[in-house]
Amino acid sequence: MAEPLRIALAGLGTVGAGVIRLLETNAALLRARSGREMRIVAVSARERHKDRGVDLSPFAWVDDMAELAARDDVDVVVELVGGSDGPALALARKAIASDKALVTANKAMVAHHGAELAAAAERAGTALKFEAAVAGGIPVVKALREGAAANAIGRIYGILNGTSNYILSTMEATGAGFGETLAEAQRKGFAEADPAFDIEGTDAAHKLAILAAICFGAEVDFAGVTCEGITRVRAEDIARADTLGYVVRLIGMADLEAGDDGTTALLQRVRPCLVPKGHPLAHVTGATNAVVAEGNFSGRLLFQGAGAGAGPTASAVVADLIDIARGEIGAPFSIPSAEMAPMPRAEAGHRTGRTYLRFTVADRPGVLAEMTAAMRDAGVSIESLIQQGRQEEGGEVLVAMVAHEGPERNVQHALELLRGSDSFTAPPLSMQILGD
Amino acid sequence: MAEPLRIALAGLGTVGAGVIRLLETNAALLRARSGREMRIVAVSARERHKDRGVDLSPFAWVDDMAELAARDDVDVVVELVGGSDGPALALARKAIASDKALVTANKAMVAHHGAELAAAAERAGTALKFEAAVAGGIPVVKALREGAAANAIGRIYGILNGTSNYILSTMEATGAGFGETLAEAQRKGFAEADPAFDIEGTDAAHKLAILAAICFGAEVDFAGVTCEGITRVRAEDIARADTLGYVVRLIGMADLEAGDDGTTALLQRVRPCLVPKGHPLAHVTGATNAVVAEGNFSGRLLFQGAGAGAGPTASAVVADLIDIARGEIGAPFSIPSAEMAPMPRAEAGHRTGRTYLRFTVADRPGVLAEMTAAMRDAGVSIESLIQQGRQEEGGEVLVAMVAHEGPERNVQHALELLRGSDSFTAPPLSMQILGD
Repeated sequence: MAEPLRIALAGLGTVGAGVIRLLETNAALLRARSGREMRIVAVSARERHKDRGVDLSPFAWVDDMAELAARDDVDVVVELVGGSDGPALALARKAIASDKALVTANKAMVAHHGAELAAAAERAGTALKFEAAVAGGIPVVKALREGAAANAIGRIYGILNGTSNYILSTMEATGAGFGETLAEAQRKGFAEADPAFDIEGTDAAHKLAILAAICFGAEVDFAGVTCEGITRVRAEDIARADTLGYVVRLIGMADLEAGDDGTTALLQRVRPCLVPKGHPLAHVTGATNAVVAEGNFSGRLLFQGAGAGAGPTASAVVADLIDIARGEIGAPFSIPSAEMAPMPRAEAGHRTGRTYLRFTVADRPGVLAEMTAAMRDAGVSIESLIQQGRQEEGGEVLVAMVAHEGPERNVQHALELLRGSDSFTAPPLSMQILGD
Repeated sequence: MAEPLRIALAGLGTVGAGVIRLLETNAALLRARSGREMRIVAVSARERHKDRGVDLSPFAWVDDMAELAARDDVDVVVELVGGSDGPALALARKAIASDKALVTANKAMVAHHGAELAAAAERAGTALKFEAAVAGGIPVVKALREGAAANAIGRIYGILNGTSNYILSTMEATGAGFGETLAEAQRKGFAEADPAFDIEGTDAAHKLAILAAICFGAEVDFAGVTCEGITRVRAEDIARADTLGYVVRLIGMADLEAGDDGTTALLQRVRPCLVPKGHPLAHVTGATNAVVAEGNFSGRLLFQGAGAGAGPTASAVVADLIDIARGEIGAPFSIPSAEMAPMPRAEAGHRTGRTYLRFTVADRPGVLAEMTAAMRDAGVSIESLIQQGRQEEGGEVLVAMVAHEGPERNVQHALELLRGSDSFTAPPLSMQILGD
């Protein structure tokens, strides 16, 4: 048997403890599959004396985690600290500079600094792996980097945030409102005390930027993701969607467009969408993640599983360790960094699609005429319109419409025409309707 | 850029033509992702002068395909001939013996001779890859061999035959019978003129045996798969299942059991099952394949996509070529052959589960008493029973029951007690009910 793979572990939260537990529980299996023993030699975290439910006594303790990267007895640094910059980034840079392989679950860091880190790892001839940074236990980075690598990917999209999906699918099942469902999700541990990162779409945007880089050979461009969360989705929207044959899901989607002048541009968006009930993503409920890749030869591929949690994330971290133990390194984003370049950002406005629009308006004469006139003036053709009878005297009236297939620009224009109107009790919500 | 990867292609059916088309269409992409040009140098097939819609003139033509393995200008042989033995096996053996890498889409050959071929490839230090042999374009071999490799897999199961799934899901949608639906599937090209291989479960069994070997580290044991097809499923069974909250799917499933004496045994089965409507596999319709792997850390992973066809299969073949071009070889079944051994076959009888049973009986007094007495005597407890009113005088009556959770052996015993009874107009059908 070859030499052990010597691992340093930075960050001992639930995922770190999960990795320790996995390496222990599945030790014999991992030895058989990778041909080497996986041996943690050193660990580091903020607090040394905290009960994590795992025995740290076999490992060297290091107070300054950056020192892990300098140790002679370490082959791979596993970074589970989190945060796009700060200690995590310092450790990552130092590990690669010291010719160590780096495995990370840190989506924020890879989304912000993936291009730099990949270039450094390739120069050093070492591995940078981040399977755990996208969609938890689903081996989707590998699936796209390698399994579907024969394909030009037309579109990559999916449900990339478990918390948002838990909230939306719970609202769907219970009919409850957003605030109430969020509070329940927080009680049950499906949402953080500060949920902004998940429900505003940032977490999904991190993952989307990473997937897009792999699929399209563009430098990771997190700043290029337009992002809208689920905080404005109401119980009524989900009920309307249901009537129309859809469910509401927070969808991250990226695709390319070729300009007339031969340039290629990348569109990356995270936003709530209406998904047809016959679409595989409509059946994804709870804190599950699912990714769809459309290859020009493979057709539509779906990868689904737990998007977070100690076990699934540890599974992905250790899959990367197995690759490294087997000597399978390769370019982190599939195409070598030297051949990747920043890609221009595409304009969404000329994309066409069907759109769901929901207005909450004061119950008084003329409001419907005002809205429909704006649609007409912006060239938006209305396919269907539902006005909900008012619940109480002088109360809010909800008007939902579906716009026919047409340029997104027109819908945006209509909303601009209506901006500032005092007929609305809340800003209108528009959601793209996904095709089958 | 490194040297081109020089490819010999044996077999020029739809998949072979698909591979040629893919290598041409995506050439620039493949060069970027693999770092090498993918160059077909020689091809071989039974008939030389057949229009395949692709230009063969750039490639050397070889009449005797075994010669492909002997050529000095070939790095990889791609075997797309088919058949478990004969020319395909001869070519595969010769390619490996000549230190060439071998890529194959041949599930029958891998299911029958995978252990021998893997051992030979590992001895030769060359690659044996068969992503295309299982579930078409879904990169499930890689997902299990690598992506989920950190996990002990509890169970692997899924929808492994597109033809059967097309037939069952069409019967579900239309209410039509098996024979009629099969004929329609044949007209539409979803079933072969001789459909036995698909509808009797053999094709699914090949794939299951391969997946089980990867997941459980056992030598491929196709002969150990118990196999029952879908030919006896009737429209009435699908209607009953629907009433009970299930759909009918042909499921291949493998899992391990640990004996008291420390031995481990493998159970591999292909058979129609009742799948709860809330289960991800219940939403898989048409000629789609889907595989579920339950890892001890990852939890449930689902991989779904087109299970056959020129494009998807070519996508999988070329993914293997990219791995080889990148130098990623590794043991074909994840664990080195030397460490794999034949695994004893588990007995199904002591497994417990809920079972759907359907009897077609002559419409005369006492038949129900005869059946329920047999259930009682065999220790099978009946959870629900539906007897369909007779359609016509003296006609056949259909009795469907669901047996409570209990040993499968008892159900088999009950069916044995009833064997030979002249009350039945056709042999009874039993289907396992999958849990959530």
